[in-house]
Amino acid sequence: MSNEKTEKSPKSAHNSWVGFRKELKVVDCTIRDGGLMNNSNFDDKVVKAVYDACVAGGVDYMELGYKNSDKIFSPSEYGAWRFCKEDDIRRIVGENPSDLKLAAMADAEKSDYKTDILPKENSPLDLIRVATYVHQIPLALDMVQDAIDKGYETTVNLMAVSTVTERELDESLELLAECGAKAIYLVDSFGSLYSEQIHYMINKYLRFARSTGKEVGIHAHNNLQLAFSNTIEAIICGANMVDATFAGLGRGAGNCPMELLLNFLHNPKYRVRPVLAAVQNDIEPMRAKLGWGFDYPYMITGFLNRHPRDAMKFNESPDAKDHIVDFYDDMLKNV
Amino acid sequence: MSNEKTEKSPKSAHNSWVGFRKELKVVDCTIRDGGLMNNSNFDDKVVKAVYDACVAGGVDYMELGYKNSDKIFSPSEYGAWRFCKEDDIRRIVGENPSDLKLAAMADAEKSDYKTDILPKENSPLDLIRVATYVHQIPLALDMVQDAIDKGYETTVNLMAVSTVTERELDESLELLAECGAKAIYLVDSFGSLYSEQIHYMINKYLRFARSTGKEVGIHAHNNLQLAFSNTIEAIICGANMVDATFAGLGRGAGNCPMELLLNFLHNPKYRVRPVLAAVQNDIEPMRAKLGWGFDYPYMITGFLNRHPRDAMKFNESPDAKDHIVDFYDDMLKNV
Repeated sequence: MSNEKTEKSPKSAHNSWVGFRKELKVVDCTIRDGGLMNNSNFDDKVVKAVYDACVAGGVDYMELGYKNSDKIFSPSEYGAWRFCKEDDIRRIVGENPSDLKLAAMADAEKSDYKTDILPKENSPLDLIRVATYVHQIPLALDMVQDAIDKGYETTVNLMAVSTVTERELDESLELLAECGAKAIYLVDSFGSLYSEQIHYMINKYLRFARSTGKEVGIHAHNNLQLAFSNTIEAIICGANMVDATFAGLGRGAGNCPMELLLNFLHNPKYRVRPVLAAVQNDIEPMRAKLGWGFDYPYMITGFLNRHPRDAMKFNESPDAKDHIVDFYDDMLKNV
Repeated sequence: MSNEKTEKSPKSAHNSWVGFRKELKVVDCTIRDGGLMNNSNFDDKVVKAVYDACVAGGVDYMELGYKNSDKIFSPSEYGAWRFCKEDDIRRIVGENPSDLKLAAMADAEKSDYKTDILPKENSPLDLIRVATYVHQIPLALDMVQDAIDKGYETTVNLMAVSTVTERELDESLELLAECGAKAIYLVDSFGSLYSEQIHYMINKYLRFARSTGKEVGIHAHNNLQLAFSNTIEAIICGANMVDATFAGLGRGAGNCPMELLLNFLHNPKYRVRPVLAAVQNDIEPMRAKLGWGFDYPYMITGFLNRHPRDAMKFNESPDAKDHIVDFYDDMLKNV
């Protein structure tokens, strides 16, 4: 926790929050991050419902899934949205006659990006988001340049930053600041960061990103019930690309809920109602089977700054809820 | 939402959050606020489990319930914890041979405080929390003085502050600053405040409270998934009495979860494990029946800065989850 700090300037505290910041862009990643709970096996109806609601709700980008390798992810096991082939995308959105831009994520070392990412003129996609761990940054930079050369907007998403040392992070951001991506993302993969850490990190990212004209993005997880509030904190600090998902659907404890975020942002282009309708009719009916959202095992991995995989495995047990304390003890033993 | 603000001082952002603030006190109000979901009808076993876990977890205060009038609340309908008679308290805690202090809340106009609050020497209670709306402040001040005269610590909890005008609030705080209470509470009854508003309010409260040597407290609700994060924001700003409940049990969307709060506070006196055990064994088993916690209808009343009563009533319908958008439309029509 923090010791008491000095007061923020009165201006920031109460003079401006009724307004909105027009540069801020909202990125839906319901199908992409949610795909980590069902091997990207979504019914077309669900994908179409999210697409339609993003269009009606004024969302800026929709991330449809991954551009990952079918050599690593077997198409017999993983659904269309792990690969985002252009024919699958067109089946849902046609040529996307809307203001909503479409995105796909390519993971470093998991994507045959040179062949699977087509030239922009042959794809309805607009944005390629390159996801990378610190040790993969040179590869990620090549992926970013490849996508730029093909005509796409790009972002680079530096994952699991809560486990990265300060020196490595500074070196990483220095490298990333020089690439052609439009934004560098702060990604709280383990959902373990508190607002003070988000604040510190976003300001650090901004110093590097702004030096070469880039924006900073935020992707939060809800292990500590802070996905929405950390997204707000990042916005207050200056992040201008913000990820959210319908009903918070995403890996483990899930993400920042789109319906909460759009109500917070006062830009009149954003509408909550179509998002709420899709949440009710298409997303919430999947919750019992997919099992995302805040839960004690995810809270515990968040406490310990650990990948949620142990919690996801533990939650497969039918009597998991009776053994939360056992899980807590096990995790502590193995710190 | 906010426009971008200036950076906080580096000190506040990263130099101090590993430590802890020893003046900060945690107030459990599981049975008191949770009692709004079941007319304060808890099994003794549950009350004892929360008490034992508070003692083992190092919690500073436990609020057992209300000291409210049995003329207004029929004892045939409302359980023991709406009245907190001393014999009922002693049945659970004996003479409370622990460091945990015990509290009860007395609502302005709902409490026969002159007779029902006994002299301190005849009660295991340590703290009387006086809850008041703005228009009841003169009465609340009399209640505070009555409790002080009887030997108790007191706080005064100004409810529904999100609906109070600035001028009324300033006048209220000026009056409250002069009373003998040890703390003035910011109470976000409708769960509608964002971090920037919490920040502004806490700083305002502190200016009045500190002028007469008082602390400021925070009581948050989770309608917008911000109960925990708003509690953190209040702490960062300087609040030193913070309310939380096991598993967030409380009216409607519930409160700041104790298990999350204790992990955030780094004071080694606080232990998460006993709280987690009570959550697993005693609190979560009540969730299906009591139905507290974040849900879309509560989110919608939070959006609109409305009392949760409409959402609580709506949620009684067995097919409520299929009519979230209808509820949203109804609430908008009646703004």
